[in-house]
Amino acid sequence: MIDKLCIIGVGLIGGSLARALRAKEFVHEVIGYGRSIENLNEAVRLGVIDGVEPTAPAAVRDADMVVIAVPIGATRDVLTQIASALAPDAVITDVGSVKGSVVQDARAALGPRFSRFVPGHPIAGTERSGVAASFPELFERRRVIVTPEPETSPEALARVQAMWEAVGADVSAMTAADHDRILAASSHLPHVLAYNLVDMIVRMDEHRSIFDCAGGGFRDFTRIAASDPTMWRDIFLANRDELLALLQQYQDDLQALMEAIERGDGRWLWETFARAKHAREQLGAGNGAGGD
Amino acid sequence: MIDKLCIIGVGLIGGSLARALRAKEFVHEVIGYGRSIENLNEAVRLGVIDGVEPTAPAAVRDADMVVIAVPIGATRDVLTQIASALAPDAVITDVGSVKGSVVQDARAALGPRFSRFVPGHPIAGTERSGVAASFPELFERRRVIVTPEPETSPEALARVQAMWEAVGADVSAMTAADHDRILAASSHLPHVLAYNLVDMIVRMDEHRSIFDCAGGGFRDFTRIAASDPTMWRDIFLANRDELLALLQQYQDDLQALMEAIERGDGRWLWETFARAKHAREQLGAGNGAGGD
Repeated sequence: MIDKLCIIGVGLIGGSLARALRAKEFVHEVIGYGRSIENLNEAVRLGVIDGVEPTAPAAVRDADMVVIAVPIGATRDVLTQIASALAPDAVITDVGSVKGSVVQDARAALGPRFSRFVPGHPIAGTERSGVAASFPELFERRRVIVTPEPETSPEALARVQAMWEAVGADVSAMTAADHDRILAASSHLPHVLAYNLVDMIVRMDEHRSIFDCAGGGFRDFTRIAASDPTMWRDIFLANRDELLALLQQYQDDLQALMEAIERGDGRWLWETFARAKHAREQLGAGNGAGGD
Repeated sequence: MIDKLCIIGVGLIGGSLARALRAKEFVHEVIGYGRSIENLNEAVRLGVIDGVEPTAPAAVRDADMVVIAVPIGATRDVLTQIASALAPDAVITDVGSVKGSVVQDARAALGPRFSRFVPGHPIAGTERSGVAASFPELFERRRVIVTPEPETSPEALARVQAMWEAVGADVSAMTAADHDRILAASSHLPHVLAYNLVDMIVRMDEHRSIFDCAGGGFRDFTRIAASDPTMWRDIFLANRDELLALLQQYQDDLQALMEAIERGDGRWLWETFARAKHAREQLGAGNGAGGD
């Protein structure tokens, strides 16, 4: 049970978490803070949060749980602002899609309070953003990965785990390095590829005809590319090394595929595609529908 | 109204068309032919077709409409087999995702009967295949593109158009060259990219963890890559030149994106992603849900 929850960044993720915790009666009071007054006012109007504060330090005062749900690039700044205003027993967690950079930021910004910080990542979301897109079922049966460091307080970790389980998520732990390597492949790489495709098509003279003739495959790509540009820019920069290594491999593999098409090597192509199809059938499609 | 419809290749597309025409009472009798006896027997059992014939020439005898719904690589062989068995006023059409190669095949195989052939492509489908995956609503509000040649009989064209409109599709015409250039971008390229991603991940040691941490983006890719390997191999080879040109451009664009990530150019990335998001919102997502 959370007495006073502070959500910094009341968007799709922060807003959905607040809604879900309220629906489960797992929280007494929710205070929000963010850059957009308009979005915060809407969050109050929608009943997602009880109130807003004009500054981040004011918002975290007396909170026993603080959730940072801002684009990753803003994390260090937010943590630096709130560090000295946190209650002694407050637990701080985040929802960022890269964990190595967040851990670095939190260690630098929080100093001795770093043991109260639990790095977290709910693998959930839609291509929409802002509090108006939030809904309380977003985390049901979704994975939340936590990446505790050696200093992380077991009690803080348990409280974060209990919060996510209260809203229906499955929580598992791994190292930040493992998280960033795996998510680079399962999430960051597909998003780069989708952005690259959609941007390439958009710049073509015939883009309107191409959109008109879109099949399901292209539609999936455009849906991915409709995600928040700030969030993804920050993710790609924060996980740069893992992502670039995979992109290089992708380019090399694509080159081999192009060469097979060029030489008309139907057998090579069929075997490659059959392997992909087989793997999909064996491994399933992951974590239920939607979300990153 | 069709008196005797012959479907060669009773899979997702051929089976769905038969089901839909029967549901609309637009056909009197449906005969099927295909490579897999098992699949044909299932088609009869499911009530998708009335009967089967042991050879392609026997199947088209007395049919007033013949629909070729086989992987593109088998088109010429099928047309060659049936050419001399076709009724004089029979209309022949196909559903292939590449039209230039099909027109070449039909011109070579049908000779003077080529005027009765109407090249067609319903932009509809799912990642599943076989008659068991077929359903009568597949073509509702979907685009069907026809690519008539100078020789094509207007009466044959009108009959094919009427058939597709009877099952709820919107029919439009363009040249085979325009079709192949546009579909290379809107459908063939996304499928190559998805196959390449899924195959690359499958070959990684950690592929199980990666599938377990799949977000919506990766799931969309695996869904695309679960499509029929034979069908897509044939499409990529038949539309090789258009596809390779786009793949080369994709690689060049991806290289530029990688360089922006490498130099930490957040502004470049944000502008690129915002442009893709904006275009998606302006242009919509095409042709309803599902299908290629």
